[in-house]
Amino acid sequence: METLYLDDANSAVVILDQSLLPGEVNYIPLTTLAQVWDAIKELRVRGAPAIGVTAAMGLYIHMKGYALGEPDKEAFLTEMARACAYLNTSRPTAVNLAWALTAMEEAVQGVESGAVSCFVEVLRATAEQIKADDIANNRLIGKHGAALLKPGMGILTHCNAGALATAGYGTALAPVYYAHEQGMKLRVYADETRPVLQGARLTAFELQAAGVDTTLICDNMAATVMANGWVDAVFVGCDRVAANGDTANKIGTHGVAILAKRFGIPFYVCAPFSTIDKATPTGADITIEERDPQEVTHLWYASPVAPQGVKVFNPSFDVTPSELIEAFVTERGLLKPPF
Amino acid sequence: METLYLDDANSAVVILDQSLLPGEVNYIPLTTLAQVWDAIKELRVRGAPAIGVTAAMGLYIHMKGYALGEPDKEAFLTEMARACAYLNTSRPTAVNLAWALTAMEEAVQGVESGAVSCFVEVLRATAEQIKADDIANNRLIGKHGAALLKPGMGILTHCNAGALATAGYGTALAPVYYAHEQGMKLRVYADETRPVLQGARLTAFELQAAGVDTTLICDNMAATVMANGWVDAVFVGCDRVAANGDTANKIGTHGVAILAKRFGIPFYVCAPFSTIDKATPTGADITIEERDPQEVTHLWYASPVAPQGVKVFNPSFDVTPSELIEAFVTERGLLKPPF
Repeated sequence: METLYLDDANSAVVILDQSLLPGEVNYIPLTTLAQVWDAIKELRVRGAPAIGVTAAMGLYIHMKGYALGEPDKEAFLTEMARACAYLNTSRPTAVNLAWALTAMEEAVQGVESGAVSCFVEVLRATAEQIKADDIANNRLIGKHGAALLKPGMGILTHCNAGALATAGYGTALAPVYYAHEQGMKLRVYADETRPVLQGARLTAFELQAAGVDTTLICDNMAATVMANGWVDAVFVGCDRVAANGDTANKIGTHGVAILAKRFGIPFYVCAPFSTIDKATPTGADITIEERDPQEVTHLWYASPVAPQGVKVFNPSFDVTPSELIEAFVTERGLLKPPF
Repeated sequence: METLYLDDANSAVVILDQSLLPGEVNYIPLTTLAQVWDAIKELRVRGAPAIGVTAAMGLYIHMKGYALGEPDKEAFLTEMARACAYLNTSRPTAVNLAWALTAMEEAVQGVESGAVSCFVEVLRATAEQIKADDIANNRLIGKHGAALLKPGMGILTHCNAGALATAGYGTALAPVYYAHEQGMKLRVYADETRPVLQGARLTAFELQAAGVDTTLICDNMAATVMANGWVDAVFVGCDRVAANGDTANKIGTHGVAILAKRFGIPFYVCAPFSTIDKATPTGADITIEERDPQEVTHLWYASPVAPQGVKVFNPSFDVTPSELIEAFVTERGLLKPPF
């Protein structure tokens, strides 16, 4: 199942509409810059690497159309800068979007010939190369990450940094896929990842499709599965890594990392090297997107939101160790054990 | 707005159907033991103290009806033991259910007269007393807890341990209500509390109705609001406290406590003294209920699931500090900063 591809004959970037998964597998062609912008904003395509590839391909399609008007070189480059600036506003947090668009601009700057038709060819080749590099890098991430795994291990992941978040193979899920291909049996716990449920709708969907033993949990159950001893490592993807290593990723990742530390479970961030943004000194310098409150107040998904037959762990309660409790506030005042 | 009350003339326990909130305020009469059992199991009434009061009143209604058949004392007590055992199976984790039913049994055992009609009177009086005690205790919890608060503080709470979880006034929210009555301005962050969304549907609803400044967040956003410095204390309720202080509460509480510890925020458990179960040595001895996977895989609520106009904080990403990350898995291998 491909996440996205270039349909050059029809001048379209074709994406798997992730907003309809897991209920419906539907590919939609994006033929204008505005359609690409909307598809990224509305999460029809999401995941930092997938957004980068989509934007690059969308930019190529747009500039191919623009070139039909036979602009001169200057007009072409001006329009391209405008298109890049526009696409860059679709989502602010992931570095890959800006990275891919910058790569496209640099590719054109490297062209000696002044012919605009040549610029278009270079843009096509560069966009395709960004996609191919993404998949190749992800397989390498998978290989390096799989070296950390042993048969029977439990892996917890948050959000979706799988094949669907990339041009293919995934980042956080790459080690799982790589190990799975070698015949290693693993258990994966997928946080559902509110508010948009990428874990339930996408991670559970693609892992189940690949035949990986997957259990879906609500985000707030992560501490319990760790306390139960079921998790040996956490793998997540990321949208931007600051120069000091602070890492922006889907809301909830920070909490999972704190829980992992508490339980002595190693927490790994899986990412292509291009996600490391040396121009951003620390996490405090990363812009965090805030989204529509209705994502929280309205559950707009037609049921079900998870693939049929997926394993679920649904404990109604958990036990908080006494040492984490400052005091018990009772009608007799503040108490501490022994009572 | 009452959570529940005894309608003796119609031989019913009348409960506010919490499964319909916040969209619909609907009271339903429970007149049979099976209806009481179902209402508890289906979360139409929930919250450990509210369940205890409902079960006690339901037991009274049932035994009043049973007494119409003029049973002898032995038959009455046998039926009562059967009814208690049945109600106790509705939900296993909260101690209040068993505690309230035991209190009802002990009240009858204290009756000198052998007249069954007298037993019925004692059951009614005991059930009403359990309710009155619950509200009185909650006001005291509020008073003791409010002493921990200062104007402008931010409070984070998980699930609903408010008026709706009790016969009235709440446990975790009691300090907030008490301080609010004294004119103290506070900010409350309500975890939505997947899978059943008691935080979104109930806590946000009752706090907003009371005029308290309330912001709804998804569970996985708690680390971010803490990291932002917006939370000065965490207050949660509980279903059972073991003798050593380990505390069973709504799934996700354990994780919130770990986050609070990480950020140096005091984490308080608010509970009537009866919730402390000295017969349970540690948290490992507490039975944790597992519920239907469909609560996770199907979002069955008609939108909206939060009260209209409630404030929402909906960041799409968070930043994980570098020190929590074991390594970055990239196509170049495992990396650590500086890169």
